[in-house]
Amino acid sequence: MTLWGGAFSSPTEDAVRRLNDSLRFDWRLYDADIDGSIAWARAVADAGVITAAERDTLADGLERIRLEFQRGEFVSAPGDEDIHTAVERRLTEIVGAVAGKLHTGRSRNDQVATDVLLWVLAAQEKLTSALTVFLAALRRQAQNGDNLVMPGFTHFQPAQPITVAQWWLSHFWALVRDVERLETMAVAWRHKCPLGSGALSGTPYDIDRQRLAESLGFEAASPNSLDSVADRDHVADFLYALAMIGIHISRLAEDLIIFANPSFGFVRLDERYSTGSSLMPQKRNPDPLELARGKAGRLIGHLSGLLATLKGLPSGYNKDLQEDKEPLFDAYDTLAALLPPLTGLVNTLTMNADRMRAALIESMLATDLADYLVGKGIPFRQAHGLAGQVVRLAEQKRVELSQLTLDDYRSISDVFESDVVKVFDYDAAVARRRASGGTGDTERQITLAESWLKQRV
Amino acid sequence: MTLWGGAFSSPTEDAVRRLNDSLRFDWRLYDADIDGSIAWARAVADAGVITAAERDTLADGLERIRLEFQRGEFVSAPGDEDIHTAVERRLTEIVGAVAGKLHTGRSRNDQVATDVLLWVLAAQEKLTSALTVFLAALRRQAQNGDNLVMPGFTHFQPAQPITVAQWWLSHFWALVRDVERLETMAVAWRHKCPLGSGALSGTPYDIDRQRLAESLGFEAASPNSLDSVADRDHVADFLYALAMIGIHISRLAEDLIIFANPSFGFVRLDERYSTGSSLMPQKRNPDPLELARGKAGRLIGHLSGLLATLKGLPSGYNKDLQEDKEPLFDAYDTLAALLPPLTGLVNTLTMNADRMRAALIESMLATDLADYLVGKGIPFRQAHGLAGQVVRLAEQKRVELSQLTLDDYRSISDVFESDVVKVFDYDAAVARRRASGGTGDTERQITLAESWLKQRV
Amino acid sequence: MTLWGGAFSSPTEDAVRRLNDSLRFDWRLYDADIDGSIAWARAVADAGVITAAERDTLADGLERIRLEFQRGEFVSAPGDEDIHTAVERRLTEIVGAVAGKLHTGRSRNDQVATDVLLWVLAAQEKLTSALTVFLAALRRQAQNGDNLVMPGFTHFQPAQPITVAQWWLSHFWALVRDVERLETMAVAWRHKCPLGSGALSGTPYDIDRQRLAESLGFEAASPNSLDSVADRDHVADFLYALAMIGIHISRLAEDLIIFANPSFGFVRLDERYSTGSSLMPQKRNPDPLELARGKAGRLIGHLSGLLATLKGLPSGYNKDLQEDKEPLFDAYDTLAALLPPLTGLVNTLTMNADRMRAALIESMLATDLADYLVGKGIPFRQAHGLAGQVVRLAEQKRVELSQLTLDDYRSISDVFESDVVKVFDYDAAVARRRASGGTGDTERQITLAESWLKQRV
Amino acid sequence: MTLWGGAFSSPTEDAVRRLNDSLRFDWRLYDADIDGSIAWARAVADAGVITAAERDTLADGLERIRLEFQRGEFVSAPGDEDIHTAVERRLTEIVGAVAGKLHTGRSRNDQVATDVLLWVLAAQEKLTSALTVFLAALRRQAQNGDNLVMPGFTHFQPAQPITVAQWWLSHFWALVRDVERLETMAVAWRHKCPLGSGALSGTPYDIDRQRLAESLGFEAASPNSLDSVADRDHVADFLYALAMIGIHISRLAEDLIIFANPSFGFVRLDERYSTGSSLMPQKRNPDPLELARGKAGRLIGHLSGLLATLKGLPSGYNKDLQEDKEPLFDAYDTLAALLPPLTGLVNTLTMNADRMRAALIESMLATDLADYLVGKGIPFRQAHGLAGQVVRLAEQKRVELSQLTLDDYRSISDVFESDVVKVFDYDAAVARRRASGGTGDTERQITLAESWLKQRV
Repeated sequence: MTLWGGAFSSPTEDAVRRLNDSLRFDWRLYDADIDGSIAWARAVADAGVITAAERDTLADGLERIRLEFQRGEFVSAPGDEDIHTAVERRLTEIVGAVAGKLHTGRSRNDQVATDVLLWVLAAQEKLTSALTVFLAALRRQAQNGDNLVMPGFTHFQPAQPITVAQWWLSHFWALVRDVERLETMAVAWRHKCPLGSGALSGTPYDIDRQRLAESLGFEAASPNSLDSVADRDHVADFLYALAMIGIHISRLAEDLIIFANPSFGFVRLDERYSTGSSLMPQKRNPDPLELARGKAGRLIGHLSGLLATLKGLPSGYNKDLQEDKEPLFDAYDTLAALLPPLTGLVNTLTMNADRMRAALIESMLATDLADYLVGKGIPFRQAHGLAGQVVRLAEQKRVELSQLTLDDYRSISDVFESDVVKVFDYDAAVARRRASGGTGDTERQITLAESWLKQRV
Repeated sequence: MTLWGGAFSSPTEDAVRRLNDSLRFDWRLYDADIDGSIAWARAVADAGVITAAERDTLADGLERIRLEFQRGEFVSAPGDEDIHTAVERRLTEIVGAVAGKLHTGRSRNDQVATDVLLWVLAAQEKLTSALTVFLAALRRQAQNGDNLVMPGFTHFQPAQPITVAQWWLSHFWALVRDVERLETMAVAWRHKCPLGSGALSGTPYDIDRQRLAESLGFEAASPNSLDSVADRDHVADFLYALAMIGIHISRLAEDLIIFANPSFGFVRLDERYSTGSSLMPQKRNPDPLELARGKAGRLIGHLSGLLATLKGLPSGYNKDLQEDKEPLFDAYDTLAALLPPLTGLVNTLTMNADRMRAALIESMLATDLADYLVGKGIPFRQAHGLAGQVVRLAEQKRVELSQLTLDDYRSISDVFESDVVKVFDYDAAVARRRASGGTGDTERQITLAESWLKQRV
Repeated sequence: MTLWGGAFSSPTEDAVRRLNDSLRFDWRLYDADIDGSIAWARAVADAGVITAAERDTLADGLERIRLEFQRGEFVSAPGDEDIHTAVERRLTEIVGAVAGKLHTGRSRNDQVATDVLLWVLAAQEKLTSALTVFLAALRRQAQNGDNLVMPGFTHFQPAQPITVAQWWLSHFWALVRDVERLETMAVAWRHKCPLGSGALSGTPYDIDRQRLAESLGFEAASPNSLDSVADRDHVADFLYALAMIGIHISRLAEDLIIFANPSFGFVRLDERYSTGSSLMPQKRNPDPLELARGKAGRLIGHLSGLLATLKGLPSGYNKDLQEDKEPLFDAYDTLAALLPPLTGLVNTLTMNADRMRAALIESMLATDLADYLVGKGIPFRQAHGLAGQVVRLAEQKRVELSQLTLDDYRSISDVFESDVVKVFDYDAAVARRRASGGTGDTERQITLAESWLKQRV
Repeated sequence: MTLWGGAFSSPTEDAVRRLNDSLRFDWRLYDADIDGSIAWARAVADAGVITAAERDTLADGLERIRLEFQRGEFVSAPGDEDIHTAVERRLTEIVGAVAGKLHTGRSRNDQVATDVLLWVLAAQEKLTSALTVFLAALRRQAQNGDNLVMPGFTHFQPAQPITVAQWWLSHFWALVRDVERLETMAVAWRHKCPLGSGALSGTPYDIDRQRLAESLGFEAASPNSLDSVADRDHVADFLYALAMIGIHISRLAEDLIIFANPSFGFVRLDERYSTGSSLMPQKRNPDPLELARGKAGRLIGHLSGLLATLKGLPSGYNKDLQEDKEPLFDAYDTLAALLPPLTGLVNTLTMNADRMRAALIESMLATDLADYLVGKGIPFRQAHGLAGQVVRLAEQKRVELSQLTLDDYRSISDVFESDVVKVFDYDAAVARRRASGGTGDTERQITLAESWLKQRV
């Protein structure tokens, strides 16, 4: 028996019921649903709608159902359309007719809105945690690589030498923005508890919605009941934040996948974090990284899909909004499954200092050569042109920049002096970039990263 | 024990294995996987790599596994990473060491490419079938509504009268394009059987790939092994085609949702295809239609996501491609779950002829008024302006167009004569549009629709 | 002559140059580019790289170029690849060789990153302003509608009566979230000034990046140079925020488009904000609303596209990132062009109180009937079922709920008493929902809305 | 003066007009618009609505306008909302009042639908042409690389040796699918000429729509007028096809970008097709390839955006559909600007045979080693495990596979014999894959490619 069929004479068609029913995925809201219901029972008791004894009976019954879920003992019944009806049906079995008082002044519309928002808030915290652990692994590798020099790329061409630390930290700080984005979003989310919005127009009982909101960990109640039952901004926010995490991870993955190719050989994955081939026994495939890169697409898709679903909906609750949950759950599960193996992969991989240094080429110091000329008083734009001529000359002579003779240099500009050889020192080039944020400033960045992490443990 | 671990000393980390393993979703490929394996066994036997007896042993074992899947008796084992390893592991249990010969000259890369393509081809047929049944329901309603007149909208404003048939048929023909799009795609898909592509470079055995392709129902083998193992065009095609179906259905759903609102009252859903409210007992909610509209967003998301996943991948098989299956399966399941209840909903709904006729307003015949003037020799552009002045005058006088006096008309143009009253006949306006495709041409369209449907039964 | 061709012997192919060159769209960054360059000139002067006199010469020249842009007098030259080279070329013409010193220690990579971020910050402020004006129009209409009752919908079916104010405010508060989202994002954006990051590895000069950042209105410099030159999070954030604005506006537009259809007739658009038809002179088409709804799709597309572009990029600057600007500019332009006419449309439209009241139906008070029973001690769930039976009985008898006799009521439950008639008062039903956020709480919401707006003027 | 304002008393607000007007982008439809109008003039003349003389006057005037557009001499006037009104306004100036007869029985709804469809058909042909030229460049490079061996990757790890030809051809055949997809789509598009659909309900004149369709190069008229004015399937199809082209090109670009990095050094771009850095004079940046990769994101975005715009629209023409044109034009322009420089880039790049051969490693022959064992009667699965042990042993001894002694081999399996050394021959490994589509089958593929290209010149 459904909870809404009073005015209906024919039962719902089976195929319709299967289409509508959401318990197969929204059972995951049970914790939020029970929290919300207990808070609601207290609120209606405070408003004098039910007695304190009824409130306690309801709360005890709900806690028992929570235990059943936690122990995997909850058994669904045929009429359980969704988590809300499943819980209320079971509550009726446990506490009897008084269960029928729980829904007073409430609707499934504000109930599910509350459930989803509570779930998103909890998911945000768990994800932030997992990201912090991942970030700690990045920071650790940065520390390991503080004195190692590797080629830094632009346009994926060797550009300037950087430390391995700078490279790891570039991914670290990008993901820090992601964590902070989620944290900032959560602040806004905590200011709009929807409970007490009813089906669309509010509740006719004398509910103190601010107090109710606070009892659920919110800062404030939502300002408008009609908006509240149809607001899925937090789901969109969350999917956006997760898509960005996916994108940042995909960029790290792309780097590592390429660096693991033997032509680079910068990195070797631990066997526990790579896989083989059914046909080619020699392979060390970076599957977790490829999946990380690929799953960024999935996360982008969930966001695009939800936004398309929300676009153009009429006011108030529409059943279309039931389509928010599956992408939400899947996006979270995707990252929850991805971050631990990626953390392990980062923690166990080894960087090959020799291969990285061997990939340095002296033309990566051409800018330093230009800066050398700037130091001699040449405007940068002209110095840049002269350095370019040096690179060209070295290419023509098929030698490295440092192998050109002083005469060669002076054939291009008589500003060059014998001290030009000092330019060709990768470590010095790195050290010169000690202005904040530069590759010579990684020690400070690592300390900063450590503080950031400590605040979140 | 994995099938590829020969060169590895450490086992894969659990979290990595869980991330990589795909059996939880790709078991659905079992039919395709077994078909592919039997065909492959025959091909390697034909090439003299295994004996005819070995081939038959393998084929018999594979058919037994198919039965186990069909009966729900297949039991997975810890090392079963995916459907391919699960089947091969079980085959070894059944037929012994000869199972180890099945994978000769093949790779999981060409195997999974073949499986997915076979699955897509089968899914296309099932979906085309379900769509045809849905289209038959639309056609039936069109026939019911062949003589009913309703307002046709542009900009969602009353524009011109149309028959209910024309409205149903507008959705019918849009979905016909979708069926034909799928059918046309399938022709291309059948020309690129990937089996025999190996891991990337082809198979070193003397396989007749054309014959192999035909034995699996294809027209031709794929032209290039490296392309073949990374080609997921058919998945993208399929997701695109399904997104378009979702969009066309969402437009029908939008119309019906609005028409079911009592301010319109054009349509009443059968109780079996609508649901109630937990708070508001009077509601008849068109849930299946709202879900249909919302799920169009999900389908768009799956497409966007897959395209983002494919973009920028290096050549050859990358594990990112494993991300093709879940959106593929979910997109298919979405429509497979949606079409039957929608078919029932369309078959059982009733159109309210009175409400539709009551919504007609005479200004919807303003174009006919202009055409009346054209008939009197006025150029259309001028006639259009004069008809506009008539509408304006009627609005000022707060009367219907037919209630204006002849003097009123002649105050605007003396071309108007007493026969102008004949313009204000909705049925005549409909009948006039008998040029092909017009609202006066629905009888022919219905016949055409019937022929189209008959070809597909 | 390009600025980078020193090492090249052949000129770039024309088609390549056309593909690469971005001046045709990035000229819009001129203000940000000039601000950034003046700040940079000061920073390198502070670091002792150039003299104070050189700094002033550069700054004066740059201000002159700004004037040329503002007056539409800037003339581009053949080699102007982008705004940066155009400005430097022109600066050289104006101040001579000293212009060549401006780029010392800087790269186009950190320069363009800074330009785009400054542009986004400015765009955010202009958009917030335009949104606030739009919000003021919504609030004004809310105030007009504070005593008007209209049907509130769920599943687009009449659900419960609400005030027109509550409906307008539901859109108001959704857009408030959008403004606050943008404002919160801007706080994060102001903590990551990229200038001084060089091409990827930082600047070799002794630049005080914190001071530099502050001189451009930032709170802090970005933490890592490599991350900084490839970070387009703010573009993604901005596109996401704009997509959400588009979605919220599309929902308002959808409501108004439907309400403007004569079957509803709730709203009439002013002629200045609607358009006609070339064929049907009577039409009042709500074009701006339809475009608003449609453009939400465009905004979603720009976001999806940028995310796909960013996904899987290797570290550091890649030319792919040039694809950030056109969607960014177009998204901003889209809303900048949309908000003023929408504001006018909202300000000038009229709500038809009679049509809205006529659309109320007594079954919308069924929940209140259940609450009436709750007041008599019946648990809500049971009360809900009884109210449903009443609705059903009224339907069978083809009467309104208030036309049922007391005997009819008591045939369903003897708890019903003669006071049941008091339930059928729409205004009372609205007034009862006075708990915060409810439809009876709009006066407080309007005051709150006013305070919110005042803070932003 | 607008063409539709007859019934309006107030002029449209400027901001609304700017929002609505589309001439700034839809002027590009002029050719299609004029073709459609001439065809329509003939059709209404055939139907006896206008005289043959009027028809000719209209046609001559329209041809004169076409010339004005072609010569860049067309001057727009203030009231020109879109290409249709601009052309009709100008026609009136040229031929006088008879111009007012052109729009008889037609609406801008069927007119713009026809224009867009004609434009898409023409764009498809131009794009197919540009793709064919690009494909010819790929084929040419394939021929150059028919005897060069390079590492083939899976999971971006060295997997098996392939020829350079096979690699180029893998991209060739993927793009062939794109051309064929467009060609197949065009067949469907040519069966649905919308002209004669009127605003939504058809035309009241006796138009032979089949003949009209054929006169515009179509095979058939569209079946339903209401569907026809709102059908944008061809725009979605086209955007989908272009997104797929973008994706396939992005994969080629990704390969080449990585191969151009000196750690690979497989490929060197001609200077005319690469660019330098403003800071680092030594750079050869593969900008066109990066832009190609990045623009795939833009193309995906245009598709996602249009689908979101179409989703959930009510029946008939809605102004939202005006949002189809800008993504359509931009998607086409994107590829039209990209393909020529990419063609030049492919034609002028050089592959470095030495670097490619140097990147081969003997473990890439491990599968061949397993196949060697299969040849000795070992089931493949067991052979695969033994080959893995060999790889492992070689790794432990830090030698290449061919440097292991026969004793080493026999310590793993006594099936190994002295002929095992013959396995370590990359060219032989390639040649063995001569089954169709394999890397040993490229000569046939190149011939096939040539035939395919010839059919399209």
